[in-house]
Amino acid sequence: MHRIVIKLSGSMFKSPIDVKLIKDICYTFNSIIKEGIQPIIIAGGGEIARTYITAMRTLKSNETTLDEMGIAASRLNARIIIAGLGNSAYPLVSSSMDEVSIAIASKKAVVLGGLYPGHSTNATAALVAEISNADLFINTTDVDGVYTSDPQIDKKAKKFTKIDTKALFKLIEKSPMIAGAYDLMDPLSIKIIERSKVKTRIILCTPKNIIEAVKDTSIGTEVIVSGTSI
Amino acid sequence: MHRIVIKLSGSMFKSPIDVKLIKDICYTFNSIIKEGIQPIIIAGGGEIARTYITAMRTLKSNETTLDEMGIAASRLNARIIIAGLGNSAYPLVSSSMDEVSIAIASKKAVVLGGLYPGHSTNATAALVAEISNADLFINTTDVDGVYTSDPQIDKKAKKFTKIDTKALFKLIEKSPMIAGAYDLMDPLSIKIIERSKVKTRIILCTPKNIIEAVKDTSIGTEVIVSGTSI
Amino acid sequence: MHRIVIKLSGSMFKSPIDVKLIKDICYTFNSIIKEGIQPIIIAGGGEIARTYITAMRTLKSNETTLDEMGIAASRLNARIIIAGLGNSAYPLVSSSMDEVSIAIASKKAVVLGGLYPGHSTNATAALVAEISNADLFINTTDVDGVYTSDPQIDKKAKKFTKIDTKALFKLIEKSPMIAGAYDLMDPLSIKIIERSKVKTRIILCTPKNIIEAVKDTSIGTEVIVSGTSI
Amino acid sequence: MHRIVIKLSGSMFKSPIDVKLIKDICYTFNSIIKEGIQPIIIAGGGEIARTYITAMRTLKSNETTLDEMGIAASRLNARIIIAGLGNSAYPLVSSSMDEVSIAIASKKAVVLGGLYPGHSTNATAALVAEISNADLFINTTDVDGVYTSDPQIDKKAKKFTKIDTKALFKLIEKSPMIAGAYDLMDPLSIKIIERSKVKTRIILCTPKNIIEAVKDTSIGTEVIVSGTSI
Amino acid sequence: MHRIVIKLSGSMFKSPIDVKLIKDICYTFNSIIKEGIQPIIIAGGGEIARTYITAMRTLKSNETTLDEMGIAASRLNARIIIAGLGNSAYPLVSSSMDEVSIAIASKKAVVLGGLYPGHSTNATAALVAEISNADLFINTTDVDGVYTSDPQIDKKAKKFTKIDTKALFKLIEKSPMIAGAYDLMDPLSIKIIERSKVKTRIILCTPKNIIEAVKDTSIGTEVIVSGTSI
Amino acid sequence: MHRIVIKLSGSMFKSPIDVKLIKDICYTFNSIIKEGIQPIIIAGGGEIARTYITAMRTLKSNETTLDEMGIAASRLNARIIIAGLGNSAYPLVSSSMDEVSIAIASKKAVVLGGLYPGHSTNATAALVAEISNADLFINTTDVDGVYTSDPQIDKKAKKFTKIDTKALFKLIEKSPMIAGAYDLMDPLSIKIIERSKVKTRIILCTPKNIIEAVKDTSIGTEVIVSGTSI
Repeated sequence: MHRIVIKLSGSMFKSPIDVKLIKDICYTFNSIIKEGIQPIIIAGGGEIARTYITAMRTLKSNETTLDEMGIAASRLNARIIIAGLGNSAYPLVSSSMDEVSIAIASKKAVVLGGLYPGHSTNATAALVAEISNADLFINTTDVDGVYTSDPQIDKKAKKFTKIDTKALFKLIEKSPMIAGAYDLMDPLSIKIIERSKVKTRIILCTPKNIIEAVKDTSIGTEVIVSGTSI
Repeated sequence: MHRIVIKLSGSMFKSPIDVKLIKDICYTFNSIIKEGIQPIIIAGGGEIARTYITAMRTLKSNETTLDEMGIAASRLNARIIIAGLGNSAYPLVSSSMDEVSIAIASKKAVVLGGLYPGHSTNATAALVAEISNADLFINTTDVDGVYTSDPQIDKKAKKFTKIDTKALFKLIEKSPMIAGAYDLMDPLSIKIIERSKVKTRIILCTPKNIIEAVKDTSIGTEVIVSGTSI
Repeated sequence: MHRIVIKLSGSMFKSPIDVKLIKDICYTFNSIIKEGIQPIIIAGGGEIARTYITAMRTLKSNETTLDEMGIAASRLNARIIIAGLGNSAYPLVSSSMDEVSIAIASKKAVVLGGLYPGHSTNATAALVAEISNADLFINTTDVDGVYTSDPQIDKKAKKFTKIDTKALFKLIEKSPMIAGAYDLMDPLSIKIIERSKVKTRIILCTPKNIIEAVKDTSIGTEVIVSGTSI
Repeated sequence: MHRIVIKLSGSMFKSPIDVKLIKDICYTFNSIIKEGIQPIIIAGGGEIARTYITAMRTLKSNETTLDEMGIAASRLNARIIIAGLGNSAYPLVSSSMDEVSIAIASKKAVVLGGLYPGHSTNATAALVAEISNADLFINTTDVDGVYTSDPQIDKKAKKFTKIDTKALFKLIEKSPMIAGAYDLMDPLSIKIIERSKVKTRIILCTPKNIIEAVKDTSIGTEVIVSGTSI
Repeated sequence: MHRIVIKLSGSMFKSPIDVKLIKDICYTFNSIIKEGIQPIIIAGGGEIARTYITAMRTLKSNETTLDEMGIAASRLNARIIIAGLGNSAYPLVSSSMDEVSIAIASKKAVVLGGLYPGHSTNATAALVAEISNADLFINTTDVDGVYTSDPQIDKKAKKFTKIDTKALFKLIEKSPMIAGAYDLMDPLSIKIIERSKVKTRIILCTPKNIIEAVKDTSIGTEVIVSGTSI
Repeated sequence: MHRIVIKLSGSMFKSPIDVKLIKDICYTFNSIIKEGIQPIIIAGGGEIARTYITAMRTLKSNETTLDEMGIAASRLNARIIIAGLGNSAYPLVSSSMDEVSIAIASKKAVVLGGLYPGHSTNATAALVAEISNADLFINTTDVDGVYTSDPQIDKKAKKFTKIDTKALFKLIEKSPMIAGAYDLMDPLSIKIIERSKVKTRIILCTPKNIIEAVKDTSIGTEVIVSGTSI
């Protein structure tokens, strides 16, 4: 294992910032770096993105413009992570795939937010995993894996240990794709995982879980590529 | 009607270039401009994109890198269209959504190719239609609308006059999403059409058909937004 | 009067965003535009900037890096104002003085946040007033002018109707220059006002006050240039 | 020998791409890299450039615009070479001399196409050889050296083992300088070779010949600097 | 006549700057603009370029690096001209052909210095004349036209009223092409004039002469395109 | 000691360039590099900046535009230093704080001129010292330290061995802040030194003095941070 892509759940970035949590997660990344692994970290938009997008939607902005606001907000979160990592991070937030390539070449930890309108940070993370030939894509969320239905609503929801991309695709076919409301994986993320065949795991976003996922412990839900779902 | 987005089928761009066809299509755009409509034109990748992507796939490039090659190739096609339009075109090929915004402000015809890896030119065109608040999105292809199955294989295939986005989504659920092989609309394009509610028509790529589509004649297949399909 | 620079107090940008206030202020700008005046608007960082800067200071970031975070945050606020202005705004947030020049040439309202580390948004606004040869610089704050001492602490503080730059300079000689804590004018802003001699007024940030300031009603505190204070 | 500049003849880039040939040439470059030499590779435009330029000339584009098309096309070829080189290549195609400098600093193989309108890829290669202080400039073409006249027309044409720049200049004084039709060296390339005094060899573009040229075997035609010819 | 390209002789830019001369030349440009003609002005490097290039050559910089220094120096001169033109000039110095295109679209006077290493400002001016479809290219120098030999050395030198490009090419075949020492036209400039067929006149750089050249009075030396000289 | 920031007095850059002095200073930097210290060098504007700014002020340019001219001029001086340093320097002049970060990551000597309008090169140097976490900021000038009054006018002026920032602030409160006339430290520089607490020494600009300052010999005037002066 030499390179992993980690999508940090937007839920990590509260207002005000939970500095203790940022420190813990950066401590975790630094311990991964010490094992010779290069992490590439994609920060989600979180509360601040939601706040601004909600306001701008009231002002009748179109969804592409809202996507761009979400990207700008997620980049603030990327700056916080770079600050937390100190010298082990490449100092700039990448804003295009070319800048990601240059940052990766530095061999330091690379941190970015969203890249392009129309892409969730999940899809961005999947693309970055693909272009960087990463060994593993850890997608952290605010639930501890993929469930048969939303566990916050349905008490009987069961967690999958593994799920193939086709089944995952069926599960998400209900949620509308509105800027700031991407849940789990969106269709584009799944398609990119399918075409790149990168090993993927969906976990609850905690420092401990990230460590376990890097060790390949059976935590959260593993996503299995099963041909192409769409 | 003051602004339309037209996605030019990659099939228009052969090798060698069919200059007569380029001239005819540009003549058509110039006649649209004379009626006070600003066209925004997204050129597909076509034969040249396919040639280079095929070669690079043999060389084991990952799909994101292939997407970027496809984008670079489609921008050559955009240059040809700019050349054909002469003074009525903004002289540069936009390479980001910000550059698209600047180009639109010039009030001239705007021409671009692909923008971002992971996006088909269809999805790019849908995003551009959204951000520019276009009145109409004309998606030109190499068939004359949406059929119940592939009309080049199935002689009994029937064309839809109208199709709602959910049904369209079901139709495309089979084709794999590999760079250079996006057919009709891909899921991301449909999602963007759904969220922006832009009026959309899928037609065979000919100058005459584009004129008809601008006039809103019932040509090709009209895409009807029906809630959200995924 | 053909061009004015308005620095919007960071206090306008709360979390969550007060959409009603944004709408009102944008309505005000649009009424100014209808009178043939081009507004150039510099958005302060406000609550979001403070939140992130506080977190990053805990993480031991240096002040230049904090400045850059503050700039990034203020640009989110600039996006909100652009959204509120709709078609009367140049669509992109300028990120350098050259981009400001290009945006001004569009004759639309121009909106930006901070530009450079080491500069408060006040100093940025003063520079922009200088380079654009603006007729008036309206600096909006969270108090209704300049007082003999902080009116939120000292009940006996008196407001100046006019103050010359030397006296203003003496007043601010106490507040430390830490990113996110620039009050009133900082020394650099005063120096730029002195060298450019732009007409300047400091007012409480409300739509009504901005209208009055444009009309040159005696509102807030007028800043008089008196040679050079430093 | 620590750094060489190689201009790859446009004739290498056919349509469809000859993947076998690309693989062989990249294998050659990789063997050069293993000997501790940094290659800087400038890809010519080839068939695709010719196709698009021919079409755009019919559309009455001016020659500077055609040059820019040729540059864009040559960059597709550069992407193919980067793909073929895999990890030994700097991942981005340089698009200015400054980007070339940054890429060279990576110590990886650097690949580019054309840079500026008005420059043949030969002249670009000569400039890059100059700025990078290369030890050798290998100019590969579709003939096996410089002949007294065009060997494809004149059966009695004789090859030079060595030729000085003045004589070379005289030889090329007949061919018109139209975008896409630069043969051998153009005057600007010769001038740059003269002023930089870089060791130069013109060879037929084959993997084997490149190896021989690096070894300084007497292959193709060596260009000798003889004062200044113009 | 709607657009002209004027190359300003480096000899205009002395140290210290002759402000009176700059004002006169800008007054001249403003009078041309009033007649509805858009001037595109390319400033030469002059004394400052020579000073820095001489120093850097002593420091063993290669010629490409010296070219870049010359370009940077000529851009200072372009800034002076923009300052002198005031509101009639596009406010930024273009630094690429794409930026030139954007600046031209503003319909204001466009001012630049050099663009690319390897190009004299003469060649740059010729390319700009080509891409902008200019009606006339006025090349101002420090002599009053083209002579049979250097009039500053040879008292018997005779001025040509007209000269064809082939004869001009022969004349310049002696002067070495070293950064900062381009005299009259260099071969690349002549080639570009030949391929673009732009009307060209070489005159002594004075305000009065520029006016005469715009009027097409027989002043200085007219350059006649005669097939292709190389 | 691993990284130092050195502001090179504009007085070093005469017209014509004193090549011997440039060589000596670069020899000094190279000797510092050999001791494992990374120098970051900020070149002042000097005579050339003054020449152009004076001319442009006559042409009624505003002070922000003059600042930008001064920045452009100082970057010519940075190029000279890069030329003098040869391979030990990062080859490009940084033009933003982000580019400074990338250049620093190369571990080579980094050379820049001014960065932003409104900032003296002193303030720029202080910001760069802050963002790079430099161990020492050496501010070289044309006097040998800070005096009680201007030693070129007042024969009785006494030099400070140490001065605290508050006292320094009082000393400079008289000099007007006009582009091209920044003496010693300006208020912004002092504020940045105060907030970053970087160790600072003001010395006469000679190679020998720089060596002494790096050794921390008591040369020139040491600046002591004493709370915040404004």
